[in-house]
Amino acid sequence: MSLLGAIEAGGTKFVCGIGKEDGTVLERISFPTTTPEETMAQVVSFFEGKGVEAIGAGSFGPIDPVKGSPTYGRITTTPKPHWSQFDMVGYLRSHFNVPIEFDTDVNGAALGEYTWGAAKDADSCLYITVGTGIGAGAVVNGELVHGLSHPEMGHIMVRRHPKDSYEGTCPYHGDCLEGVAAGPSLSRRWGVQGAELTKDHPAWEMEAYYLAQALMNYILILSPQKIVMGGGVMKQLQLFPLIHSQLQQLLGGYLQLDETNANIADYIVPPQLGDNAGLCGALALAKKALAEA
Amino acid sequence: MSLLGAIEAGGTKFVCGIGKEDGTVLERISFPTTTPEETMAQVVSFFEGKGVEAIGAGSFGPIDPVKGSPTYGRITTTPKPHWSQFDMVGYLRSHFNVPIEFDTDVNGAALGEYTWGAAKDADSCLYITVGTGIGAGAVVNGELVHGLSHPEMGHIMVRRHPKDSYEGTCPYHGDCLEGVAAGPSLSRRWGVQGAELTKDHPAWEMEAYYLAQALMNYILILSPQKIVMGGGVMKQLQLFPLIHSQLQQLLGGYLQLDETNANIADYIVPPQLGDNAGLCGALALAKKALAEA
Repeated sequence: MSLLGAIEAGGTKFVCGIGKEDGTVLERISFPTTTPEETMAQVVSFFEGKGVEAIGAGSFGPIDPVKGSPTYGRITTTPKPHWSQFDMVGYLRSHFNVPIEFDTDVNGAALGEYTWGAAKDADSCLYITVGTGIGAGAVVNGELVHGLSHPEMGHIMVRRHPKDSYEGTCPYHGDCLEGVAAGPSLSRRWGVQGAELTKDHPAWEMEAYYLAQALMNYILILSPQKIVMGGGVMKQLQLFPLIHSQLQQLLGGYLQLDETNANIADYIVPPQLGDNAGLCGALALAKKALAEA
Repeated sequence: MSLLGAIEAGGTKFVCGIGKEDGTVLERISFPTTTPEETMAQVVSFFEGKGVEAIGAGSFGPIDPVKGSPTYGRITTTPKPHWSQFDMVGYLRSHFNVPIEFDTDVNGAALGEYTWGAAKDADSCLYITVGTGIGAGAVVNGELVHGLSHPEMGHIMVRRHPKDSYEGTCPYHGDCLEGVAAGPSLSRRWGVQGAELTKDHPAWEMEAYYLAQALMNYILILSPQKIVMGGGVMKQLQLFPLIHSQLQQLLGGYLQLDETNANIADYIVPPQLGDNAGLCGALALAKKALAEA
């Protein structure tokens, strides 16, 4: 079985791994994200001489994942110092003569859960991460969704919870979904980190209200066969039943589908790849690169 | 070139046509939608002996377009008398031994505009109709989006316009997008039909506000390369520039793409197939049926 290289390029840390086409990770390493020169040198040094036959990179963004575009392969307008316009695919190509697949971290995670995880029996799925930010990736008819660029589902508009007076953290939209429901909004609204709030704190009902609204829109627009919710905030597993019931209330019986009714607890689920979701996502991108080469 | 049969199955009338793979319509007929027995007998009688090699049907819904599902090919839970659970594909198969493709009317229209119309140079597109209801179909990576069922994008939640006190027409959600922005909400809110309102009436700014919110969500979730807006309400062409500017305001410069900035007037456009969008959509479904047979 071929050896594959996986890069989970996060804004705080990079995780690199060597894995196989069945999703097994044989070896992994992690280091902080500093400058492209320093960080990418560590990436190259990890993979050199290991004989990987393809590399997949799931990256923080925004990025340009559209093949054929003049800026394909770059991290584009990130506010992260030093990384704006960095040509990651160009850099990797200059060191490794193997097929490379480059996408957002969440598209990678969606493909990983679709290939080996919670959505492996579906034709379509949505992976959402709720953490420092909110992002999502989608697989439709077995393919990742790109189009004009990559989805930016975290920034959709939501209705305000009637008891929420917090103005929102998003520098572009104020109180878009990410502005009112990502980790930083939780801690600013309640004055303590989300993880320190008790499991019956009203924060979770409000959080579930916003996430259920987002899911309603995602379901009505994409109709995914499975929804996987990961990221730091979703480690608060009490959110799942709250989201299930709020979503059913919002849908008002409109969709007469088992998935949104009796079987909702099997429809909206935590990642099966757990903390490996990001790295396995990059591995799934590498597998794709090899298959399409 | 093969002859193809097209059925635009609307809740008020059926339009049937004979066309070719290049999108040309050679012959068409239209009759009111009454009972399945009566209406479908007219469909059969129109196509009989014409030698069509495939049939495409774009139907009012909700329908089950998911191949392999036990209720595939049916109109499912429509409130329209006599049509609930009608097996359209089964009926057509019992009369014509040719490949059949069955989908929603808006998925058909999306595929038609993608194949021959406003989106013919794109890899992905979204077609939205704003009329008696609001519906949309999407093509992603060249394929129609289905998943769990078919999208129901008209029912997403929107924020209320600050000057709008109308409660909304949707029996399920009250003031979802369709509830506040479809044709019937226009006439109930303002007391006259939309077509009778002057072009500078504040109704259009409010309408554009709601539609721009929907487009923002569709773009952030699907990232389509082209957006085509049709249906009765969109014949008010003054809506297009209002939607363009409201959408840019809502996005707040977040997407640094030509399509949502300088070139927005070429990005969000009327249908190029005009009043033939529905029938050409069904023709595109027939072409797909033939290609996949």
